Amino acid sequence: MQLGMIGLGKMGGNMAARLRDKGHEVVGYDAFSEERDVDTLAALVDRLAAPRVVWVMVPAGDPTASTIAELGDLLAEGDLVIEGGNSHYADDRARAEELSAKGIGYVDAGVSGGVWGRSNGYGIMVGGSAEDVERARPVFDSLVPDEGGGFVHAGRVGAGHFVKMVHNGIEYGMMQAFGEGYELMVASGLVDNVPGTFESWREGTVVRSWLLDLLSRALEEDPELSRLRGYAEDSGEGRWTVQAAVDHAVPAPAITASLYARFASRQDDSPAMKVVAALRNQFGGHAVTKAEDSGDA
Amino acid sequence: MQLGMIGLGKMGGNMAARLRDKGHEVVGYDAFSEERDVDTLAALVDRLAAPRVVWVMVPAGDPTASTIAELGDLLAEGDLVIEGGNSHYADDRARAEELSAKGIGYVDAGVSGGVWGRSNGYGIMVGGSAEDVERARPVFDSLVPDEGGGFVHAGRVGAGHFVKMVHNGIEYGMMQAFGEGYELMVASGLVDNVPGTFESWREGTVVRSWLLDLLSRALEEDPELSRLRGYAEDSGEGRWTVQAAVDHAVPAPAITASLYARFASRQDDSPAMKVVAALRNQFGGHAVTKAEDSGDA
Amino acid sequence: MQLGMIGLGKMGGNMAARLRDKGHEVVGYDAFSEERDVDTLAALVDRLAAPRVVWVMVPAGDPTASTIAELGDLLAEGDLVIEGGNSHYADDRARAEELSAKGIGYVDAGVSGGVWGRSNGYGIMVGGSAEDVERARPVFDSLVPDEGGGFVHAGRVGAGHFVKMVHNGIEYGMMQAFGEGYELMVASGLVDNVPGTFESWREGTVVRSWLLDLLSRALEEDPELSRLRGYAEDSGEGRWTVQAAVDHAVPAPAITASLYARFASRQDDSPAMKVVAALRNQFGGHAVTKAEDSGDA
Amino acid sequence: MQLGMIGLGKMGGNMAARLRDKGHEVVGYDAFSEERDVDTLAALVDRLAAPRVVWVMVPAGDPTASTIAELGDLLAEGDLVIEGGNSHYADDRARAEELSAKGIGYVDAGVSGGVWGRSNGYGIMVGGSAEDVERARPVFDSLVPDEGGGFVHAGRVGAGHFVKMVHNGIEYGMMQAFGEGYELMVASGLVDNVPGTFESWREGTVVRSWLLDLLSRALEEDPELSRLRGYAEDSGEGRWTVQAAVDHAVPAPAITASLYARFASRQDDSPAMKVVAALRNQFGGHAVTKAEDSGDA
Repeated sequence: MQLGMIGLGKMGGNMAARLRDKGHEVVGYDAFSEERDVDTLAALVDRLAAPRVVWVMVPAGDPTASTIAELGDLLAEGDLVIEGGNSHYADDRARAEELSAKGIGYVDAGVSGGVWGRSNGYGIMVGGSAEDVERARPVFDSLVPDEGGGFVHAGRVGAGHFVKMVHNGIEYGMMQAFGEGYELMVASGLVDNVPGTFESWREGTVVRSWLLDLLSRALEEDPELSRLRGYAEDSGEGRWTVQAAVDHAVPAPAITASLYARFASRQDDSPAMKVVAALRNQFGGHAVTKAEDSGDA
Repeated sequence: MQLGMIGLGKMGGNMAARLRDKGHEVVGYDAFSEERDVDTLAALVDRLAAPRVVWVMVPAGDPTASTIAELGDLLAEGDLVIEGGNSHYADDRARAEELSAKGIGYVDAGVSGGVWGRSNGYGIMVGGSAEDVERARPVFDSLVPDEGGGFVHAGRVGAGHFVKMVHNGIEYGMMQAFGEGYELMVASGLVDNVPGTFESWREGTVVRSWLLDLLSRALEEDPELSRLRGYAEDSGEGRWTVQAAVDHAVPAPAITASLYARFASRQDDSPAMKVVAALRNQFGGHAVTKAEDSGDA
Repeated sequence: MQLGMIGLGKMGGNMAARLRDKGHEVVGYDAFSEERDVDTLAALVDRLAAPRVVWVMVPAGDPTASTIAELGDLLAEGDLVIEGGNSHYADDRARAEELSAKGIGYVDAGVSGGVWGRSNGYGIMVGGSAEDVERARPVFDSLVPDEGGGFVHAGRVGAGHFVKMVHNGIEYGMMQAFGEGYELMVASGLVDNVPGTFESWREGTVVRSWLLDLLSRALEEDPELSRLRGYAEDSGEGRWTVQAAVDHAVPAPAITASLYARFASRQDDSPAMKVVAALRNQFGGHAVTKAEDSGDA
Repeated sequence: MQLGMIGLGKMGGNMAARLRDKGHEVVGYDAFSEERDVDTLAALVDRLAAPRVVWVMVPAGDPTASTIAELGDLLAEGDLVIEGGNSHYADDRARAEELSAKGIGYVDAGVSGGVWGRSNGYGIMVGGSAEDVERARPVFDSLVPDEGGGFVHAGRVGAGHFVKMVHNGIEYGMMQAFGEGYELMVASGLVDNVPGTFESWREGTVVRSWLLDLLSRALEEDPELSRLRGYAEDSGEGRWTVQAAVDHAVPAPAITASLYARFASRQDDSPAMKVVAALRNQFGGHAVTKAEDSGDA
């Protein structure tokens, strides 16, 4: 089918390529890329035959918000917007309502798979009405892995990004668990072959997983991870997962621990631990005059 | 090769069967099973040609300790004991030293794979001297999956059980992450198709894994998990992982959270939360006379 | 000075009484209490001499929002609203802006102390302009403990409720720490005199605190806390503290653990732990047919 | 009464001084201090009239073990050893049994209060037989605060150190909660007066406590804690508390989080977070070649 793809970066560009390989006609636009087929959003809309389907794959936050607002002005009744970025599920609902007033449909799509997706296929989780989802189904079917699976219509608008958010929260927990296990093996002084241990776990064990495959690959390239710092950013989804858990009174200690470990990894010096150090010094009864730690009591 | 297998339960019995399928001669003994080939440990030792290799696969703790002590008396110089149960790595070192005084070798083997291992193969992680490990190599090679992988010689005696322990700690963290994600999706009221979401994640996503396959299978059989209680035992490995982390000053918050969630799942009523409730009542300034909770302040 | 007090419940009523004891003229109004001096909000405004100072002490959320909205219509330029409930600091800023457009001042006041405050005095933390805070200073000075202290002008509008929120977050952490310590002493089987231990800690130790005094009092009344269930509500402040921590990328593991322990205390059955149980059953390779747990692997 | 004090450091020296102030006859010995009254342990034993009471107040671990072993040889039937250091409760039981075989009594005493104890008095928690505890009661009564309280006979041998360990675990949790609250206030950018906020909390609030007094004092001396690094050691008690919690299947998430935060504060670079960074790089599909972080997926 015909599809407009807005955003031709690492994700959107690869997805457009995979769709073209599968026989779809993709018209691409990106404000910052030479790869684009048209030079403006208006030109993209002109190029597509009504009723149009437009996939938005630009950075979350302002770029997505302004793109969708502009599309609201350019598109016509009967068209459909698929928001494939990492939007918050609450924003989906507001956007869908605005577009709905103009007769424009809205589907939110969470996309997993990273740059491996072009060849392996993507995991696609969508939210929206059955009718809107059905219209875009040929696109979803071409994005998922060839062997099938990889697609779910999770619920109404917002549900696609919600389950993608939860997916990423789980991902945080799994990555942290591997990290803790790695550190413990290294610290023990007992394990001579840490990379080989992870490699061996790829078959036959309970923890076998794609993340383990990636970790094994990373350790093959850099057996002591000496080219990396223990520093990790967090994207919005991890924070949103914890905030959603708090909103719904769901205890999420492992996922939250994973998020906090990332926060801590980015701190040069922890203000909280300065307080602990200050208190330990106070036990000693002397003025705090140096960067030192006196003891518990 | 010829091997004595002590313990013919869910694990040992399946392993013996897999080894026989691969052409090994296995002499099995189990104090409580009719499947045994000999009726006593002494008969097992008699039946094997020296130098013997004996695999111990009985419950951790006393049964393993007494079996190995008895073997120490029955075996001869040049024989080899493989301890395949879930022993603590510190116990391995003590046992290896005792046997070593008699010229008997010792290899500790962590085994992963559960009842699926008979057909899929097992993950095998061993600790011991290069010589001892090499002697038993044909057995290890037949236990791992047919497609290869699944084996590591992790280090000296104790290293096999240590990395199996860490494997299980990671497994705790992964299971907990899936659990938290499931609960959040259910609590949100936004996700109409929770089983389908997990099913879709099996292909193309970052969280694809054997545990996800199992969870998807469980949700297919019982979509709301209504036949289960939210109650989970813990085996020794989870506790040992946390205790090793504390010993080595390794922060392990996600794995520890997973262990504590299991502890909490088994409590009818939490004494700690009684204290919180008692304090909240005290803020109200009145005597604690009923099972009620008055407020923060 | 003259003050209007809106809300004469457990907090507002006691505060009004303390202020009267200290010589202030308090005109009280409460939609649901016979103790009120006037029958409507309009009558309260009429009764006060301009420029007026009105303290709002009604439940957080809608009651506070509608009361302040109504006051916005009734009050005049130069009047001052003090919001003393448990509002979210972001709501303070929105309200202050609306009132400011009409020339009405706004101070947010966090109040700690519970029912003990009437006799002991309250902890008061305020946010607002120096001028607005100064106008209400005689009221604050009478609310705090007679021995002094207990007051801080923490920053601009919102800062009062923000630091009260953090205060409650810390309170959660302290209560949880006492709870965990209590449970461990009971579980150990080694401590014959748990209430006496807490009682002894009230003097000379590092953990001496008002919360410990309250806990010791609770254990004197009910040495095994047998009249209580391990069940604790959470008020908004605990959740907001965690959400603010996530917003600001501040690791807050102890406070978050305390919040999650309260969430878990209110669950009959944990959906997350059903997933863990389901996975453990799957290791066994058999269908999930009963509420039972088969093992790790 | 007459007492031998072994160890005249920060704790033992101050305790000896307090006891002398209260009229006790203290004979002091310290291997490394000029303050000693006798030059050898044997001389100390000679100087005391039988039946003797000897208080051991030397560093935990080997120094305590060797001192008590030596006392076992020097003391006679009817004498009493009080172990006041930070020993593990399991060691107490082994030592008590050995001394008991020679007719020597044993009391384990946890001591809280730090250098403030000399003037404020100490918190004293003891384990042992009623008879042994009674004999040393005059010493305990002089060590606790003048206003009374501060003493508990918690149970049999080991119970004193066990409850002191739990006391310190709770202390970890309280310190961490204050630290997290401090960091959140600083990070918010909303609180102009963080030291003043803590100071104000010392009266009228729920979190008022000795630790808050100390923190307020530290912030008065160094309002931004700029003379300190966010680095905290941990003594054995915190680790033992977590290990005891794991042994007894007691969820202790807040205390454990506090311990782990200390571990993390001492790491230049976290190996676990290197794994997270490596995995994030792998999502990008390129070799790990720099200390950089590519994204989640």
